[in-house]
Amino acid sequence: MGIAVIYGSSRKKGNSEQLARLLTEGFEADHIFLADYRIEPIKDYRHADKEPYPEDDYRSVIERVLAQDVLVFATPIYWYGSSGLTKTFIDRWSQSLREDKDGFLEKFSEKSAWVIGVGDDEPHLKGIPLVQQFQYIFEFTGTRFEGYILGKANRPGEILEDKASLAAVEQIRSKWRSASVNG
Amino acid sequence: MGIAVIYGSSRKKGNSEQLARLLTEGFEADHIFLADYRIEPIKDYRHADKEPYPEDDYRSVIERVLAQDVLVFATPIYWYGSSGLTKTFIDRWSQSLREDKDGFLEKFSEKSAWVIGVGDDEPHLKGIPLVQQFQYIFEFTGTRFEGYILGKANRPGEILEDKASLAAVEQIRSKWRSASVNG
Amino acid sequence: MGIAVIYGSSRKKGNSEQLARLLTEGFEADHIFLADYRIEPIKDYRHADKEPYPEDDYRSVIERVLAQDVLVFATPIYWYGSSGLTKTFIDRWSQSLREDKDGFLEKFSEKSAWVIGVGDDEPHLKGIPLVQQFQYIFEFTGTRFEGYILGKANRPGEILEDKASLAAVEQIRSKWRSASVNG
Amino acid sequence: MGIAVIYGSSRKKGNSEQLARLLTEGFEADHIFLADYRIEPIKDYRHADKEPYPEDDYRSVIERVLAQDVLVFATPIYWYGSSGLTKTFIDRWSQSLREDKDGFLEKFSEKSAWVIGVGDDEPHLKGIPLVQQFQYIFEFTGTRFEGYILGKANRPGEILEDKASLAAVEQIRSKWRSASVNG
Repeated sequence: MGIAVIYGSSRKKGNSEQLARLLTEGFEADHIFLADYRIEPIKDYRHADKEPYPEDDYRSVIERVLAQDVLVFATPIYWYGSSGLTKTFIDRWSQSLREDKDGFLEKFSEKSAWVIGVGDDEPHLKGIPLVQQFQYIFEFTGTRFEGYILGKANRPGEILEDKASLAAVEQIRSKWRSASVNG
Repeated sequence: MGIAVIYGSSRKKGNSEQLARLLTEGFEADHIFLADYRIEPIKDYRHADKEPYPEDDYRSVIERVLAQDVLVFATPIYWYGSSGLTKTFIDRWSQSLREDKDGFLEKFSEKSAWVIGVGDDEPHLKGIPLVQQFQYIFEFTGTRFEGYILGKANRPGEILEDKASLAAVEQIRSKWRSASVNG
Repeated sequence: MGIAVIYGSSRKKGNSEQLARLLTEGFEADHIFLADYRIEPIKDYRHADKEPYPEDDYRSVIERVLAQDVLVFATPIYWYGSSGLTKTFIDRWSQSLREDKDGFLEKFSEKSAWVIGVGDDEPHLKGIPLVQQFQYIFEFTGTRFEGYILGKANRPGEILEDKASLAAVEQIRSKWRSASVNG
Repeated sequence: MGIAVIYGSSRKKGNSEQLARLLTEGFEADHIFLADYRIEPIKDYRHADKEPYPEDDYRSVIERVLAQDVLVFATPIYWYGSSGLTKTFIDRWSQSLREDKDGFLEKFSEKSAWVIGVGDDEPHLKGIPLVQQFQYIFEFTGTRFEGYILGKANRPGEILEDKASLAAVEQIRSKWRSASVNG
């Protein structure tokens, strides 16, 4: 069971990263920090001649994502949604769909996914639209949406005081351990 | 009554643009195409020394938005949310909050806002998380969220066949006309 | 095309009823006022010996619903959801599932459905959970969820001033007329 | 800190009840089983002469609810919402509002609330509209909505295998213990 952790924060060592690190510690994981790469907004060529897509880091990043079995999206909750970095990356999946729809969906349909969102304005309630958006995304890609953690934190490290999130992390880790043994 | 229309599509003359043009035709409006500007992802300096923010087009764009009374966000529904261009622009509001929170919120609190999202996968249902996200955004900024249109279209121009959206456009225009006369 | 209108208000001639009457005027429709019938809460016998279900009006009401092609649920928005009358009626569908799951789902899968909710506290936003609940209900029953109207009204008759709702009504009627001619 | 647990199931010893019992074990709590009482649907007299409200058990039940500091709503997820029993009880709050709006809201504004929903069809996702509905309810009553557990279970006792829910229960109990000591 290999894990791809897709970090959407612009800041290193933030709360969403910390929570995702606790979650995946000791498991084989590829840690992908979107802020380290250049990924431009999608060009919508659905109804135009196919022009070249941006020559940026999208392809190499999506390849790393597709190579793993389990996806963990770890994003700060910015303005009640995933970060622009995260959203821009996902928008580019339309490019992959256009280039090889069947192959892309087949790979995604074999994965399971988790979403971590961390914010400080009632994330357990106001993070819900973010969860529902991922719900539709994974419904489209055929990915099993296993669960989510909506963590509460503002200043650096505060997530370590969010006991509900820490309990959720432990519960997922325990599930993964069983899967590794039995799988 | 001045209107700022914030277009989030990467493509010109797409369905969300067409709908927003029908909506605002004949009204004084500043048409802002985010794809025409360079707006980088937010740098999260909340817990760091204040470093310089990106030298890009954000400031000039937000000034134009703040100058109007009515905001219309017109975005294609990409992956069940607003476009990355739209989300990246909104994320940058955190910069404005950091630079002048009171002034920023005061200006936003005097505006009213509309959201247009156009997609082809059951937008009246699967566009709902997008609406709810804007609901929390405007709750935070104190902006009156007047309403939204979730239009259905895929190929270019198809939005003109979505009679429910066209009726909604007419209804809003009629409301604006009364406001202009009475206001 | 026969329509079943399921009214969930405890009050006659209220705003949700008025809107549903405008919607269905001139079409063949069975108008079912849940408040006129005795429908008790569901007994959950899933994990118990099958005891007798309540001897009330449920069976006759559900038969009338199942006999039509198009369902219109017209409910006031009470406490940000459908009325208790409406919810209690739907809960009883579990009885029908237990008695004849395949037959029940087959009938529902051939229908299309509309939802009308009328309230006075920002129904276009705060009525959304009601819509999403029906979305899951119809997903389960295999019913095509065609659309919804979230109308704004408080005092009697006020719905007639909600131009967006009236426009939506006209748009659905026009759709139905085409279906009747072509269907 | 006194707790009112409002059980919405028609069945005794079901999964939502079991989870709520684990949550409240050892704390001072009034366990209120709505199925044990006769609570009729609300009569909507907002725009009519005030007629007598039903002579049923509503008043005695709401008095017990109002007497406690913490509310726990424990409902099975029926058809992607709270049970009809739960909804019908909440609808009747409109009667209390009509009889003494200020007093009712003042009492509710001093309480905190938790919601437990248990279902078997992806409750962590499809239970979300139920949570959002309670979110608006508590926003209206001014009650602090502390959190929710969306548990997964079908056959009796299965909730005891839902480790995420059990962890959430422990976390809330630990929070309550601190509050009792410090409060």
